[in-house]
Amino acid sequence: MSSNVHTTLEQFLGITRKIKRYNEALGVMYWDLRTGAPRKGAETRSEVIGELSSDMFKLQTSEELGKLIDALSEPGAYEQLKELDRKILAETKKEYDRSKKIPAELYQEYVVLTTHAETLWEDAKHNSDYAMFQPYLEKIIDFNKQFIQLWGQKETPYDTLLDIYEPGMTVAKLDQVFGELRSSIVPLAAAVKNSDHQPDTSMLKHSFEKDRQKEFSHYILGQLGYDFEAGRLDESVHPFATGLNPGDVRITTHYYENDPTIALFGTIHECGHALYEQNISKDLIGTPLSEGTSMGIHESQSRFWENMVGRSKPFWQRYFGELKRLYPEQFHGVEAEDFYRAINVSEPTLIRIFADELTYNLHIMIRYEMEKAIFNEGVAVSDLPALWNAKYREYLGIEPSTDAEGVLQDVHWAGGAFGYFPSYALGNMYAAQMMNTLKKEKPDFDELVREGNLLPVKEWFTERVYQYGKSKTPSEIIRDVTGEELNPSYLVEYLTAKYADIYKL
Amino acid sequence: MSSNVHTTLEQFLGITRKIKRYNEALGVMYWDLRTGAPRKGAETRSEVIGELSSDMFKLQTSEELGKLIDALSEPGAYEQLKELDRKILAETKKEYDRSKKIPAELYQEYVVLTTHAETLWEDAKHNSDYAMFQPYLEKIIDFNKQFIQLWGQKETPYDTLLDIYEPGMTVAKLDQVFGELRSSIVPLAAAVKNSDHQPDTSMLKHSFEKDRQKEFSHYILGQLGYDFEAGRLDESVHPFATGLNPGDVRITTHYYENDPTIALFGTIHECGHALYEQNISKDLIGTPLSEGTSMGIHESQSRFWENMVGRSKPFWQRYFGELKRLYPEQFHGVEAEDFYRAINVSEPTLIRIFADELTYNLHIMIRYEMEKAIFNEGVAVSDLPALWNAKYREYLGIEPSTDAEGVLQDVHWAGGAFGYFPSYALGNMYAAQMMNTLKKEKPDFDELVREGNLLPVKEWFTERVYQYGKSKTPSEIIRDVTGEELNPSYLVEYLTAKYADIYKL
Repeated sequence: MSSNVHTTLEQFLGITRKIKRYNEALGVMYWDLRTGAPRKGAETRSEVIGELSSDMFKLQTSEELGKLIDALSEPGAYEQLKELDRKILAETKKEYDRSKKIPAELYQEYVVLTTHAETLWEDAKHNSDYAMFQPYLEKIIDFNKQFIQLWGQKETPYDTLLDIYEPGMTVAKLDQVFGELRSSIVPLAAAVKNSDHQPDTSMLKHSFEKDRQKEFSHYILGQLGYDFEAGRLDESVHPFATGLNPGDVRITTHYYENDPTIALFGTIHECGHALYEQNISKDLIGTPLSEGTSMGIHESQSRFWENMVGRSKPFWQRYFGELKRLYPEQFHGVEAEDFYRAINVSEPTLIRIFADELTYNLHIMIRYEMEKAIFNEGVAVSDLPALWNAKYREYLGIEPSTDAEGVLQDVHWAGGAFGYFPSYALGNMYAAQMMNTLKKEKPDFDELVREGNLLPVKEWFTERVYQYGKSKTPSEIIRDVTGEELNPSYLVEYLTAKYADIYKL
Repeated sequence: MSSNVHTTLEQFLGITRKIKRYNEALGVMYWDLRTGAPRKGAETRSEVIGELSSDMFKLQTSEELGKLIDALSEPGAYEQLKELDRKILAETKKEYDRSKKIPAELYQEYVVLTTHAETLWEDAKHNSDYAMFQPYLEKIIDFNKQFIQLWGQKETPYDTLLDIYEPGMTVAKLDQVFGELRSSIVPLAAAVKNSDHQPDTSMLKHSFEKDRQKEFSHYILGQLGYDFEAGRLDESVHPFATGLNPGDVRITTHYYENDPTIALFGTIHECGHALYEQNISKDLIGTPLSEGTSMGIHESQSRFWENMVGRSKPFWQRYFGELKRLYPEQFHGVEAEDFYRAINVSEPTLIRIFADELTYNLHIMIRYEMEKAIFNEGVAVSDLPALWNAKYREYLGIEPSTDAEGVLQDVHWAGGAFGYFPSYALGNMYAAQMMNTLKKEKPDFDELVREGNLLPVKEWFTERVYQYGKSKTPSEIIRDVTGEELNPSYLVEYLTAKYADIYKL
């Protein structure tokens, strides 16, 4: 490498490292705010966060960074770069262009709008008052339509938004996979609903002392291979995982004494995210590639560990005894199989976050179709509640009686996160597809889970997925792991077999 | 105010606010590192801390800030400034000058040296190997001698160092007050040692379950007026208090099951620091004046609450019953008076941090004299162990058999903190002097403590001390509160009366 290019590269990497470090400092403060920072300090803390965010944004959009990106992108320089540096350059350039294409004042206006809208949404939801929220939603959608034009429209306007959360994902692809998924899941959910073999969930209707739930959460995290020397478990109102760096990936949960499954599966879900972030290669630390490659692949890991391991029969054959030891009275006379069926009960619900593994995908498809209608078909914002309700009737056979239980239930749109929802269902499909490969390569997978020998599973994912962080795209990951593109049939097969067993279909 | 000066002032205040915000972000990360950040993330986190510290230092020493300070210091501009802005200007200028007078490379070299020295000191102390530490200590002292020249020597070289921690404090003043203190405390400690009425401490030689200690610490904090909506109590190896902003002042403690007094008095001590920081006026938030005015005044608050409230007889007349309820077996047959005497047992020790309220001051005087000998009298670093041991023999009548128990016991010198030690004894003197005024104005002080009615005491200190933060100097504080300069006789009177009672002298 010429000394000229070397110097340019070092300056460039210095700025990207600095951005990453500011981001980590912000991550610590966000974690702290959500896990017990004192209320009275929050106002000043938010000014601190604002100051650092603004400094980070200035770095990310600085002329200096732009010039360095340009200099390294010149053919003479670019050909001297190593593969890893090219990937760092590509990722940085992508973010730089995205940020630079939006005028700073426009973006500032948008941040203020969404911040207000999130607060207002809480009230609107509380009062089930869509009319109150509608003008804000209209403005947020208008901003996003402007952003799409500024960023440059892909195949369709909505494609531009999808690409933010799942690089390379398109409406064409989602129409295809969601179509296939829907045609199998709707009849399956109907069969489940009409089955004469509904699971008995009465053993969950007890009080479950919090400290013992905590103990069990810690125990299970250890069993899953979560590294407590590179993370910690805390409590927060809404559970989350945050990868500050691969040596510090924290998760939170929330304990409810009247339902032990919420903390339990919430913890395992966040653990899936954390296993991903804890096992990113140390070589990527300090670079923009040291994080999960997309929301969909990230969600594949939380879903795999939560549902395909944590809600599987072999898992509870191994661990129900341990749980029962902590709550002997509550589970008196209950067998692992009973518990397994109870935690997998499926029935249509109005609220996405309470949905079971099977019907959850339908909630996502509805939101996907709504967002597509907004950005590609120009549906009026005033028509969204009626459209929402019609789709719930069509897909789930139930209809909200209030907008609080309908179109107002999720915060995502108030925050402007259009294109985000599909990640959840993509995660389920990726997870099932990867599990199919895993089971081919490890035919004793069920046996490993039944023995509580879960580390080989974590190691398999580390080798195939985790270590690469963002140095592979989501479609590279799924192709390299499974040998094919995203294919919804594995999720259909998995759900069909699982629910046929539970509901004796 | 002219629009010109107004603009300059706004720019100036913008930079000082930004420095304060960076400092708060760093404070959150330090707190996190010390209260349970995962081990494996520490290396990357320290790079994040390094990046932000370096950016903050650049702000603090920027040409831009220098020009703004100069512009506001011009007579035409200065006379237009309000009192508060003048104080912010003075404080900022003082720090700016201090930082700018040391060449950046020299300071960088010093930071590397002290960082190494602190690590090496641990080994040297562990092996009681002064020869190993000596060359580092020599270098650190040489650096400090250079700094003194660069900053400008005050009356004596050591005065320059004292001024860092206690603005305005001098060798002349300390020689006087420590001389008076010493002449009373040495014979008092001897009388205590020879008393036939040694307290019985056997009730403390039990096991005290940790969760109950925690419960009691939380309870006592509430009683002292610590605001849990503006702070939290955590655990760390070495207890500390950190004022991130007045709405977020956190404290830590460390529980030992074989000795409940360590966590208890440690918690109360840190609470004293925290009450100060929680009650700084909201008007000062975001300015460099939003912190305690000096180490000595800060320590006066930790010592007042720990010793003059927390180790007082009325306090345990009120609270011993509560403690006994938590540990009925351990305290079976023990009365409040017995407990009060046991926690105030005094005897000469080699180790400062285990010293009692009476002999603690002698440990400080020894260190003060050693530091004065180093900087003002040119004593050789190789002679320090012998000098140390001679002074322990002279002041406390005991002599260390190893340097680990002697000159190597404290980390301060390894970190370059010369001039810091006197703050601890200053704190005791300030506290006793302020209590004297408090008792004149609130003759029912003992009664208030005996009733557990402590809020009026906190309010008195808020009105007289806390609210002002750094907007008054330490000598302004002590004069305004007590009507006179620092006067050691109040501490002597207080200790004489207290130990005469306990040891029936």
